[in-house]
Formats: sequence, C-alpha cells, structure tokens
Amino acid sequence: MIEGRDMTGGPVKLRYGLVGGGPGSFIATVHRMSIAMTGAAELAAGCFSRDYEKTKATAAELGIAEDRAYRTFAEMADAEAKRPDKIDFVVIATPNNTHYEAAKAFLEKGFHVSCDKPLVFTVDQAMDLVKTARAAKREFMVTYVYTGYPMVRQAREMVKAGELGELRVVMAEYPQDWLSEKLEDTGAKQAVWRTDPKSAGASCCVGDIGTHIENMVHFVTGLEIESLAAQLDTFVEGRPLDDNAFIWLKYKGGARGNYWPSQVAIGRENGLKFRVYGTKGALEWEQENPNVLKFAPKGEPVRLLTRGNGYLGDHAKRWTRMPSGHPEGLFEAWATIYEAFCNTIRNHAAGAEQHPFEIYPTVVDGARGVKFVNDCVKSSREGAAWIDGSFSG
Amino acid sequence: MIEGRDMTGGPVKLRYGLVGGGPGSFIATVHRMSIAMTGAAELAAGCFSRDYEKTKATAAELGIAEDRAYRTFAEMADAEAKRPDKIDFVVIATPNNTHYEAAKAFLEKGFHVSCDKPLVFTVDQAMDLVKTARAAKREFMVTYVYTGYPMVRQAREMVKAGELGELRVVMAEYPQDWLSEKLEDTGAKQAVWRTDPKSAGASCCVGDIGTHIENMVHFVTGLEIESLAAQLDTFVEGRPLDDNAFIWLKYKGGARGNYWPSQVAIGRENGLKFRVYGTKGALEWEQENPNVLKFAPKGEPVRLLTRGNGYLGDHAKRWTRMPSGHPEGLFEAWATIYEAFCNTIRNHAAGAEQHPFEIYPTVVDGARGVKFVNDCVKSSREGAAWIDGSFSG
Amino acid sequence: MIEGRDMTGGPVKLRYGLVGGGPGSFIATVHRMSIAMTGAAELAAGCFSRDYEKTKATAAELGIAEDRAYRTFAEMADAEAKRPDKIDFVVIATPNNTHYEAAKAFLEKGFHVSCDKPLVFTVDQAMDLVKTARAAKREFMVTYVYTGYPMVRQAREMVKAGELGELRVVMAEYPQDWLSEKLEDTGAKQAVWRTDPKSAGASCCVGDIGTHIENMVHFVTGLEIESLAAQLDTFVEGRPLDDNAFIWLKYKGGARGNYWPSQVAIGRENGLKFRVYGTKGALEWEQENPNVLKFAPKGEPVRLLTRGNGYLGDHAKRWTRMPSGHPEGLFEAWATIYEAFCNTIRNHAAGAEQHPFEIYPTVVDGARGVKFVNDCVKSSREGAAWIDGSFSG
Amino acid sequence: MIEGRDMTGGPVKLRYGLVGGGPGSFIATVHRMSIAMTGAAELAAGCFSRDYEKTKATAAELGIAEDRAYRTFAEMADAEAKRPDKIDFVVIATPNNTHYEAAKAFLEKGFHVSCDKPLVFTVDQAMDLVKTARAAKREFMVTYVYTGYPMVRQAREMVKAGELGELRVVMAEYPQDWLSEKLEDTGAKQAVWRTDPKSAGASCCVGDIGTHIENMVHFVTGLEIESLAAQLDTFVEGRPLDDNAFIWLKYKGGARGNYWPSQVAIGRENGLKFRVYGTKGALEWEQENPNVLKFAPKGEPVRLLTRGNGYLGDHAKRWTRMPSGHPEGLFEAWATIYEAFCNTIRNHAAGAEQHPFEIYPTVVDGARGVKFVNDCVKSSREGAAWIDGSFSG
Repeated sequence: MIEGRDMTGGPVKLRYGLVGGGPGSFIATVHRMSIAMTGAAELAAGCFSRDYEKTKATAAELGIAEDRAYRTFAEMADAEAKRPDKIDFVVIATPNNTHYEAAKAFLEKGFHVSCDKPLVFTVDQAMDLVKTARAAKREFMVTYVYTGYPMVRQAREMVKAGELGELRVVMAEYPQDWLSEKLEDTGAKQAVWRTDPKSAGASCCVGDIGTHIENMVHFVTGLEIESLAAQLDTFVEGRPLDDNAFIWLKYKGGARGNYWPSQVAIGRENGLKFRVYGTKGALEWEQENPNVLKFAPKGEPVRLLTRGNGYLGDHAKRWTRMPSGHPEGLFEAWATIYEAFCNTIRNHAAGAEQHPFEIYPTVVDGARGVKFVNDCVKSSREGAAWIDGSFSG
Repeated sequence: MIEGRDMTGGPVKLRYGLVGGGPGSFIATVHRMSIAMTGAAELAAGCFSRDYEKTKATAAELGIAEDRAYRTFAEMADAEAKRPDKIDFVVIATPNNTHYEAAKAFLEKGFHVSCDKPLVFTVDQAMDLVKTARAAKREFMVTYVYTGYPMVRQAREMVKAGELGELRVVMAEYPQDWLSEKLEDTGAKQAVWRTDPKSAGASCCVGDIGTHIENMVHFVTGLEIESLAAQLDTFVEGRPLDDNAFIWLKYKGGARGNYWPSQVAIGRENGLKFRVYGTKGALEWEQENPNVLKFAPKGEPVRLLTRGNGYLGDHAKRWTRMPSGHPEGLFEAWATIYEAFCNTIRNHAAGAEQHPFEIYPTVVDGARGVKFVNDCVKSSREGAAWIDGSFSG
Repeated sequence: MIEGRDMTGGPVKLRYGLVGGGPGSFIATVHRMSIAMTGAAELAAGCFSRDYEKTKATAAELGIAEDRAYRTFAEMADAEAKRPDKIDFVVIATPNNTHYEAAKAFLEKGFHVSCDKPLVFTVDQAMDLVKTARAAKREFMVTYVYTGYPMVRQAREMVKAGELGELRVVMAEYPQDWLSEKLEDTGAKQAVWRTDPKSAGASCCVGDIGTHIENMVHFVTGLEIESLAAQLDTFVEGRPLDDNAFIWLKYKGGARGNYWPSQVAIGRENGLKFRVYGTKGALEWEQENPNVLKFAPKGEPVRLLTRGNGYLGDHAKRWTRMPSGHPEGLFEAWATIYEAFCNTIRNHAAGAEQHPFEIYPTVVDGARGVKFVNDCVKSSREGAAWIDGSFSG
Repeated sequence: MIEGRDMTGGPVKLRYGLVGGGPGSFIATVHRMSIAMTGAAELAAGCFSRDYEKTKATAAELGIAEDRAYRTFAEMADAEAKRPDKIDFVVIATPNNTHYEAAKAFLEKGFHVSCDKPLVFTVDQAMDLVKTARAAKREFMVTYVYTGYPMVRQAREMVKAGELGELRVVMAEYPQDWLSEKLEDTGAKQAVWRTDPKSAGASCCVGDIGTHIENMVHFVTGLEIESLAAQLDTFVEGRPLDDNAFIWLKYKGGARGNYWPSQVAIGRENGLKFRVYGTKGALEWEQENPNVLKFAPKGEPVRLLTRGNGYLGDHAKRWTRMPSGHPEGLFEAWATIYEAFCNTIRNHAAGAEQHPFEIYPTVVDGARGVKFVNDCVKSSREGAAWIDGSFSG
C-alpha cells in the first residue's frame, strides 16, 4: 500500500441518488455496498422501481426520507436539482433500455452520473451522452468494474512500460453457463430482460459480457480496433438473441485478437480472462483468481505476481486495501472505481487536477463498447465478414 | 443466496465505539470498512490512541464528535454508559496486552464487545472474560475472521452431516514470510509489538497465526484436543519469541492432527490451509483461494465445490453476497462475522432466539485459543512432550 | 489396469526399419525409445540419412548390420522385401516433403507403415496413400501421438456415451513459443525445415500443430467439419509461412469450433488443450498435465478425473501402465499408439479381428489433416472466408 | 538437452537377471520396461517366482532361455557366475524380507545389484551389504526412483549453489489412500505383504513411503538428521503395522523438518511433495506434477521452473529426454536411474571415473533409509520421544 493514501472509510463526503434497486435487484445492492465500503458517499434519494409503492418501501428500508423517494427519474432529477442538500451524483442501475434517457436527464440537471454497461443501444445515443457530459463538465462513469482489480492495473502498467515489447496476439474470453438452458422461461428477472431485444438491445451475449472483454483488453493494452469479424450464435432454441460469440480483431499496428464470450459454457461461472503475447513477454490474468498475474518474460521462468507485494507498480499499490495473501474480491474492485470516481468529483469541485491514479471507466469507454456491440452484430449478419471496427471518441 | 435474507447494507441500526485505530493502524481500518459494508452499525465514539492529540485528529478525520473522542478506554466506557445515544458495542483493536482490561471494562458497563485475537495472555484472564460476559449477558466476539468464509461454513456442514465419515487425520498450516528477517529492528509497528513478549505474550508465531489454525480446525471439525506436543523455534537471531512451530494433536476419539504455523517461510503470504481426512471422504481448503473447497469422496473423482452454487448447503448460501465466479475476499468474511454479531445483538435485544445461521466466533473460542497458545509454549519448554491439551469452556 | 492385458515389454515380436533418424535427429529417437518400451518390435534396418556415411555410423551405433544400412529408402524397400527376415513395418521420420514417396514405396512392397504428420502436401497425395494402403491391406499409422493419452481416450468414451449431451462449442488451442524469433536463421534444423515451403508445404503453424488440434478434436468428439474460416498470420518478419492462426469451424449438426495454434506465444511450451461444451456437461484437458481430465456435469461441482482410477472407462484402463498418481508422460502415449499398431499388425497376420481397444491414428486421419491444412490456407488467402471444410475418407 | 550425450536407446550393452516378477507382479514390469527404454541392458536370466512352474512360464513369455530360468536366487547366482555370457547385474524386485540374502548372494558372486527399497529389515543387515559391496567393488543401486526426475536434480543443484541461503524448514509429505480400508483382507498382493511384519518388517507406512521422503529430502538438501521424534498410528483396525506417521526432524546445523507419510488420506494418490525454506529462497516440488519446480526468491515473485528449458542447470538438462512442454513421467525417472547405474558399471569396467552426472541412489542411501525406519519405530514406541537419528555410512 502506498504511504499516506486515503482509504480510511472515513466520513461521508458526497451524497448520491439511485435509479433502480427495488426488491429483487442484485446489481444495485452491489453499488450500494461498495460505495458504503469506501465511505465516500451516502445514499440520499432514489427512484427504485416503476411501482411507487415499491419505491416507498425500499426507501423506508434504506432509511431514505419519504420526500426523496421519487415516482420517476425525471421527477427525481428535477426535484433534486432544486434542493440545497441535493445529491452529487446518480447511480443508474436499470436495464439497458432506460440508460440513455435517465443519464441524459441527470446530466442536463448538472449531476455526475454512474451508469451500468452496456451504456445504451446505439452509437448515436452513446456519442450524444459523451457530448452532453463534456458540455456539462460532469463526470460520467460506466461501471466496467473489472478494471478496478489491482492486478489488472499492474498489467496495464507493464504493457505501457514496454515489458511485453510489441504486442502480437491477444486471446480473451468470458465463458459463463447461466443461460445454457432457457432460464428466461422460468421468469428469472436477470434472464428475462437480457434475452429480450426490447430491454437488452441487439445482443445478449456480446452486450452483456463481450463488452467486458472489449473494455478489459482496451484498458490493459491500449490497442485500437481496426477491423473485426464476428460470428454470433444462439444455441438455446427460441431465444431471439445470441448466447455465444466468436470475434476476431485486427488492431491498428498489426496485432491480432480473438474474443470468446459465451453464456452456454457448462461448468464455467464468470471466466473473464485475458492473455497478451508480445515480442518480449506475455501476461495472463483470470477474473476468478484476481490476485494473481502471470508474467512470462521471454526465455525465463513464468512469474506469479501477486497483489500486495513491494515489487509491484504504483497503480497496483494505490488500490490495494489488504496485505498480500489476504484475498481481495470483486467488491473491492467496485469500491476502487467508485472511490476514484468520487475522488475525481471532489478534486474537480476543488479545482484540482485529476490524479493519475484516479482512473475509472468513463462514458467514452461506454461509447466504445456500444460501437463494439453494434459492429459485432453487423459483421455476424453479413456472414462474419471483416468490417471496419474503428472508434473515435 | 437464500431468499428473504437481509443483506441490503440498509440503514444503520447499531452504534459502536473503537479502541485503537490511530494513525498507521491497519486492522482497525479493516474493522471499520467491513462494518460499513454491512450497514449494520456506525462508528460513534473512540479512543484511537494513547496520545490524545492523535485521538482527536483521528476523530475529526472519521467524523466523530469531539466529546466522544476519549483519552482512555476506561473514560470511554464510563462516559458512553451514561449517554442516551450510547454505543451498542465496542471494537477492541489494540495489541494483545490491553485486551483483558479493556474488554472487562466495557462488559462491566453493559456493552457488547468485539475483540482481536489472541484474546488475552492467560487462561485465567480468558475464563474470567467468559464468566463476565455470561453474567452480563453480553455478546462477545473474538475476530477469528477466517471462519466467515462461506466455503469454510460449507466444510463445517459437510463434516457435521457425516460426509467424511469418522475423522482420522487433520493437516493444517499457516505459512507466512513477513518475519523471515528481523523486521522489528526497522521499527515496523506490526513486527515490533508481535515479537515483544510484553505486548504479544508468551508466543509470536503460535499466538498470532497458530491460534487461527486451532480455531479453524475446531470450527470445521468440532474435534476436541486431548493432548498435544509442540516444538517452537526461533530462526531469526535475537528474536525473543517463536517464529515457527510444529504442533501435534491427539483429539478425543482417536483422530490425529498436525499444525504448522510459520513466519519465516519465504514466498508464502498468508497460507492458512486445512486438509481433513475421514473414513469416507476428505476436504481441503486454502485461504488464499477461498471460493473453492475440494471434496474427495472415497473412490470417486475429486470435486471442486465453488461458492455461490445451488448444490451448496444453507450456511454457505446464507453468507454469499456475490454470484458464483464473482470472487469474494477477506473483507466479506469480516462483514459476515460482523453481520452475524450485530444481528445477534439485535435479535437478543428483541427477545428473539439466535438464528442458527448467525454464527460468529465467541469469547469461548477466544479462551480456547489462549489455552492452546499456553499449552504449546509449555510443551515446547518441556522438550516437545505430550501434555494435556483439553479445554472446557 | 485391465486384467490379462499384455503390457509386459516382453520378447520382441516384430522387426522394423527406420527412414530418418541420423545424427541430431530428435523425433526418430522418440520413435525408437517408445517402441523399445513396448517390447513389441526391434529395429532391424535403416536409411538414416541422405549421407551414406552418416547412415553407416548410425547403424553401427544402433547395432544394425551393415547390409541393412541403406543408401535410399527405395533401395531399402526393395532389398528388405527380398529378405526372409525382412522388416514388418517401416517408420518414416523425415521432413514432410519425403513422406509421400517413401510411404508409397514401402506400401507397394507390402510393408506396414508408420509416418510422421502432417502426412503429405496435397489431398491428392493423401487420398492416393489411403487407396494404396487399402488395396495392399496394410496398416498405416500417422503419428498423431496425443491421442495415445489415457485421459484423452476417457474423454472420447464419455462423449460417445452421451455424458456431455449434444455438443455445442469446442475451444481448442496449441500455443508454443519456439518460433517467436527467427530461429531458422540460426540454422536450427527443426526450425529451418518447418519454415521452408519446400520441406514443410503450404503452412508452418497449421501444418505442424494446427493439425494436432484438428485430429484431437475429431478423435474426442467425432464432429465432422462442414465449413471453416481461417486467418493465418506471420509475425516474424521475413518468414515465408504462418506462425499463428485463428480458425473457426462449423461442424455438421450445428456445433461451433474455435482453434488457435501459435508458435509465437511467449512463455507457452506445448500447450495443446481442448474444451468441449455440450448441453449436459463439459470436458477440459491439457497436454502439459495429461493425467487429469476435468469434467463439469451440468449443475454439479467440477470433477477431476485422474488416470489410473477404478471409476474410469475401459479404454483409459487398457492403456494405463502405472497406478494413479504415478505420472505417465508423452513417451507412454507414443508407446500406446505403437503397441496398438503392432498388436493390430499381429492380429491381422493371425487372421484375428482388430480389438476395439487397439486404436491408433490411421492414414485416413492423416488425409483428413492434409485436407484441413489446405482448407485453412485457402480460406486465409480468400480473406478468411467461410469455405467448405468437409472431408470424406 | 546437453549436446553429445548418449540417450539413443542404442544397442544392448549389458545383460541382467531378475529376481521376482512372476505373474501379477507390478514393480518388476516397471524395472523391465524402463531398462528397455534406455536400451542399456537386456534381460537374460531370471528367478521369477518361488513356484518353478511359474518361473518357467514367465521365462517363456519373456523370451528367456529355459536353462536361465532358475529355481532359486542362490542357484541363479551360482550358475550365472560360471557362464561366459553371464549377466552383469541382478534386479531384486521381491518383498523386503528376501532382499538381504539375495543381494548378498549376488554380490558375493561378483554381480552388480539393483534392489527395491526399503533395502532390508535391520541396520546391521544394511551395513553388512554396504561393506560387502565396497569389498567386492560392485555397484549397488537401491531404487529410490523419485530422485531420477530432472526437476528434483535441478532443486538439488540450486540448494548446493546456495540459492536458498541457509536452510531453515523442510516440509515433506507423501499421502496416499490405497490402504484406507483393509485391502489386505481381499487378498490384494501388494497390500498383503506390505501390512505383514514378516514380509515388510517393522513398519508399513514409514517403510514403504516414509523412506521415500527421507531419501528425497536428503538427496535435495544434503541435510543430515541429528535427532527425530515419530508418532506412528494405525487407523485401520486389526492392521498390525502403521498406516500413518508424523515425524519431526532436527537436522545438524539447526534446520527443522516435518514429514508426513500416510496411506489413509482419502483422495490422495501418490502425493510425494517437498517444500524447502531457506534464508534467501524456497523450493517446492510435487511428484504428481513433476515437470515443474516452484522457486520463491526472497522478495520477488514466485517462479515456475519447467523441465526442458535453457535456464536450467546441467544436471536437469543431462536427464531430459523430451523438449519442454512434452511431459516426462515416472518411467523416465526409472530410466534415468537405470541409465546412470548402467553407465557407471560400464565406466568402471572401462577403468573410467564416474561422471558427476551419473547419479543413482546407492546402498548407502538404502542403509540410511533402514536406519530411519528403525529410528521412527523406536521413537514412536517410546511415546514419540526425541531420539538420536544420526547415520554414518
């Protein structure tokens, strides 16, 4: 850990509101618990459900004053904007189809925004949010949370420092098995909305987890996609969206990539993994064992870099909360991106520069992901043809 | 996850005070962050340091009112007892030598207590705390946190259900390497007090980590020690306490145990691990990879049980916060024992029974650990002789 | 191990000749050592080098009579055919460009043949060898040795028995790093011929190791390729053939495949691996840890099946030489395919049926591999277009 | 692999005889197959069974002339000594109780000897064989085969080179589960003789596998035992010998050791493993994954050293037969000790010095093992008392 850093879980400094998170919600709870862990913000308002009774019940349960339990996100944005004790930022933890309007509404009222991924349905919507956030000078986080792991940040630093030489091949995958049967027919909420084009958009598998691969590889390697080819498949009969995809990438500069997201890979839980091969070395990391980073320097034994050690770089150290051997997990990754987000809000409010350690995934990352999903769908519809995959945000 | 369980990180329900946790403290921060994560209690008072200026500074940083920043724990126990908004429980996160008096003072004023391990120096002190807590009808947690991992609870359920048959051999170990050099000479706070008999008691290695082995094995297997033999060694010259120990156990009923705690095992970080072999099956678990439990049923392939799956038992499910494949770490284990502790306080306050899921390590576990440390030291001084190792709490 | 099987390393029963294997040869030594291990055949003749002096020296070293050290393979085929103590089969362990003529010559003289892979350059040559072998009623092995591992045979049996349900996705890879620099410029024999189109044919990476993936997946799953798309790349400047390839497969029946052979993956040694996902379960196996097979039955914990155990099927047991936990390696896999090959020769000589356990990779497998290499090259030249990939042998 | 080394499986150079190895034998087959693999010797004579009919049948099966199929080992030693084409060495692969007399008989007739472990029952017998072999100037191998693995030899070289600094702690174990039930009651040959004091001697578990631990640690570390304490237990009712043992060691110079052999550890196959911790680094190796050696240099990431790589030392390279990533297993370890044994016999016959690479376990290692077994039994009978454990051979 780095001397003098603020990781104290100290007094609450910011206030936030929550869109989504009614009864049965999973991801909104994760947002709340990880924010609580950082001590950087406290929940002050919410529009938790489309059903106002449910919103009121959740507010009561969470200790939110009744006048800050809102019927709609629009009402919430309006009303909060007028309060002297208004929220600093809003968390949008609803299905994909509501992200665009909600985010826009809050940005326009001057709030910072944290929104689930994938950001929106279309590239136009995404670029509009980028533009709006820039114009409003507001922070906008898209919760690609896996970039919050210290060893992922270590990987990024090592690539930047040239320890892998020139990059050649990226192999990345994200196998899961939770949609290997037609779970949506049982009414399971997560499965229902993700497999429905109305709420999930043009893709299930690429949209939900393929984007995590895309974001992770971009974060770690900085590689820019030049062109891509994608083969999206649906193995579960009657499902209108993809549940498995093969994607090839040609990056600018000549490197090649191979991504495999799947929701039908029996026995696999949440297997996000990347392997990056360069001319001088290689890196390998798996989300299910996040405290370890494998590094293969050319011609030498493979090394197991583990979180919390003195030989790691400053970025990994900055976001380490427990000593080595005391496992950190996904909540800490969430806490990291939220802490960086909140610190950046405070730094900007105080007129300070953003510290180089205070990295969080932004609306530009979100827009890049939306472009990626749409490109994959397009290529697949054209018989897995190579198509332009470039993005400029 | 089990339907209807309360894991919402909801409104603060209890208030707590903190003894210890001044500048440079590590463990007190962990207590605070994990309590924050549960949402079950908020920090309201503290005696953070022997130096009152430091206590006031820490109070300011943590948002504690100045009149609740106390000079001594005794003053804090007195003053809080008189407040209408008094704390519900105290967290004692100081070196071992202050535990006894601090815990006793708060118990006698009617507060519940959460205290670091090892609990105290002598068995007499420990049994006195057991008696005092019982008389006062107060909850008393000793933070053997590793029992909070869901897969440890799964292991316990499986042993109880007889899936291993009769137990025969327990192999448990806890290798670390942080004391492989004379770190205490550099002034490193953690090393200084743990290697000093005045603050750490009669043992460094057995006291600090050997007790975790003892507690873990007892928690998982329920085995009672009948006799033990211990060989404590000091490899770093000039260190007055042990930094490596070999311990053999004969349990009641005929099983045998073999524990190895070490602080000089180069390359090892925090390797608490147990292997339990019975007549029908075996279990293996490692703290550094806590989401997996290996189960070997006799004559069948080894099975990798992983946290978050439907095939697990109720105890593991009850304390699971993330779906399978989304790693939980040590903070969540802390959150679990604190959530169970707080729920038990509230249940008892409401006249309810303790729910069978609301398991946390108690003052009796703490006393058992103190007995174990003292027995190991005694056996080693007698040439690693077998001595009575039984405990009745 | 199965009762009554013959694995005694007993008296030599067959005689063989060797083409290739002069000084500095690696693979011919492996052929010889593994045959010696089985005790099923002894070396009796050879044409070890294009340089007759070297051939004679090698013959002397290996204890081969001078009159059976031949100048050319043609001379050897002729001369041996006339001897009463003639060889039973020939081993062809030379670069790819000599396989066709040598194999044809020996077949036509009535010898059984064992030949390295890839079999030949063109599909026409391959199909001609298939036809010739069938007409001559000779056994013809192509040394896809990795199919000799017991746990690979276990995987095959499990797929056949339906334990995975209907297959959906196959992920297979074979990363190496030995060609990540321009090793051929150093004169290293293996690198020189494999990167030279004259000796290696149209592909380096797909030809050398991509074919192993193709053969392994076909062996284990029985899936037939319907169409494929391939992207072959050369990362080392100035190398005329591919050193990395991405290949997608559509199999008959709807399953999808994804193969990745690479010779530039720093830190990877010989990482042949397959993962097969079906509707009911999944299998995973890695060549570098060949005694373990991971099996994930839907909704249950992952199981680690290990070689030598009673719960395995008959095929795995038949080819197990050491008890469980006593590692078998690649030599044993070689011994297995040679023992099956020799047993089949003897069974046929005795008029017996081929036993179902006596499986070895045949000339048809070799031809399928040649078709696969040529298809991959063709698709890549057409911009990774989907092309017909079917084979009928 | 080292340039110019002889690993060709070339012409047979020595002849050997076999005592043991009748129908149903396991270990004798392993001796024969591994010798065949080296090409260094051929089987020429045998006394395969106490039942002469069985001996003759085995001789026929193995292609041994009938006049070299002997009724007793004494007859064999006599008769072979008189032949011009006599055997060079004898392999003794019978239960422990016949080793002494058989070995002595062959030594006295001038034969080199290879004998299974544990060598004999008593230290007196062992020292007598040491003396006899020295007097006769014969090579005498005791087949502690696990020292034949290249990565074990790498470990030894690293310890010798001081890469671990001063040694502090050795943790070694050998868990198996094959005797977790009363297998001997089923008539299983291996179980019957190993659990019977008449054929196995004073110990089952320590004698069969504890000695492998002792030998391995001595081979790798060179540490000499000063004193030891042992607790031998029998978990399977009615078994007259131990099936689990805990052993502590004090080595000369101050290091400490902890050995655990077990035959009742459900789910464990053949888990020989050592971990050696010094002041500068640590090593870890497991027999079930023998191609990898973990090295932890102080303060740096753990490194995975793998067989076949250029960064390894000369001893590991000398005994490597396959390139990296092409797994070698236990047969190759057998082949290594036999090749070194045969080479030494030939070197000595030619008046040459023993090459430093030609290491095999000798009769002195065998005697050290016998002393160890007897010391463990003695300590355990005295209540696990510390007793003198020193050996001078």
